[in-house]
Amino acid sequence: MPTAGILIIGNEILSGKVVDTNSPYLCEQLRELGVDVERILTIPDVVETIAAEVKTMSQTYDFVFTSGGIGPTHDDMTIDGIAAAFGRALEHNESIADRMQRGTGKVLNESQLKMAQVPEGAKLLDSGDLWFPLVIVENVYIFPGIPELLKKKFESARDRFRGVPFVLRHVYVTKRESDIAEALHELLSEFPQLALGSYPKLREENFKVLLTLESRDGDYVQRALDSLLARLPEDAVFKVE
Amino acid sequence: MPTAGILIIGNEILSGKVVDTNSPYLCEQLRELGVDVERILTIPDVVETIAAEVKTMSQTYDFVFTSGGIGPTHDDMTIDGIAAAFGRALEHNESIADRMQRGTGKVLNESQLKMAQVPEGAKLLDSGDLWFPLVIVENVYIFPGIPELLKKKFESARDRFRGVPFVLRHVYVTKRESDIAEALHELLSEFPQLALGSYPKLREENFKVLLTLESRDGDYVQRALDSLLARLPEDAVFKVE
Repeated sequence: MPTAGILIIGNEILSGKVVDTNSPYLCEQLRELGVDVERILTIPDVVETIAAEVKTMSQTYDFVFTSGGIGPTHDDMTIDGIAAAFGRALEHNESIADRMQRGTGKVLNESQLKMAQVPEGAKLLDSGDLWFPLVIVENVYIFPGIPELLKKKFESARDRFRGVPFVLRHVYVTKRESDIAEALHELLSEFPQLALGSYPKLREENFKVLLTLESRDGDYVQRALDSLLARLPEDAVFKVE
Repeated sequence: MPTAGILIIGNEILSGKVVDTNSPYLCEQLRELGVDVERILTIPDVVETIAAEVKTMSQTYDFVFTSGGIGPTHDDMTIDGIAAAFGRALEHNESIADRMQRGTGKVLNESQLKMAQVPEGAKLLDSGDLWFPLVIVENVYIFPGIPELLKKKFESARDRFRGVPFVLRHVYVTKRESDIAEALHELLSEFPQLALGSYPKLREENFKVLLTLESRDGDYVQRALDSLLARLPEDAVFKVE
């Protein structure tokens, strides 16, 4: 199955000024598509750090998604970092410059011209109604940090990221986690391929733990669910869905 | 100044089922305290991965904060991972077992006894009104994934994490980012130590970009702010605060 790493680039996240909503969005979307996100990493706007992490992630995962650091200002280092990761020079892209010029209606200034620079050999993908294309270098998809723009760009490209989706079932349990841990342990011995999640909830009235059962094989999940329900006392289950 | 790395441990984040609110909370708190968060990493519940990342972060930063994976169930791998990172065995901690027994009023079952295991030589810190202590191994502070509990534990320990806080000023700008990029570039040539942030806002009526100016030296920030305001056209500034 395809794997992915997410690289969030920006001092504003690390310094607590901006909450990253992009990685939760990407995780949810990719899960729906059947792509396994294996790592999310947030780093500062430093070219060498970006280069090193992009290189490692690109070698490790099928897809790498970066977010942030592609604007026109001093702290936008992502394009330089990605170029450095692959040992590529930056080149002026006339097609981006053209679109920007048509978008603004003015002669581009120096900082706008900076945005028209891409690593040599980058692919450009038209992003729906956005005038700025999605830039792709090898398996690295370069997204903006602004959530509205990231979503539009992701939607325009989402068909490229398809695996086999998971089938997900929920069981709401009225007992404490430590009271059902043994049953879960046995369940996993019988169904070692099951992706089983156990989440204690402190503020729910009707249940104490939410269990999630997942597999890409729907039959397998159903058999695991039946087995789990047989292992739990009847009054331990508030709801199954 | 003290530095920190944050390690979020849990498949539920990577699979998009739970949104991580702990790292934004820690980033905000640590910024207030003057500690520099340099990296946030989210990884799955896999002992070897946890061990490798804890080891690297512990060597790289003054403080490491882990969140998640310390409950009683099959997918709680954090304590094993941290023990492996430092080559320490796990040992039964009678004081934790005692507290848990008093908390539950029953003889502890196997999965509860698992929660009383800590790496050899771990320090325990009483966490306010919580019956479960904060466990510390070397410079690694082991927090739960449940946000309410993480906050309580952090508050009880926050005096341990003090640097010199930043002085932060905001400038709300009515021009586009690309129209002020040159002024920002010049500002940074004059004030190379300034932490300058530039955040385009698509949905604000009165301004287009929020600038943040920060330094641990209040005078330096004030001089940088004066210099910035002198560089921007008067009608470009909506508000300073």
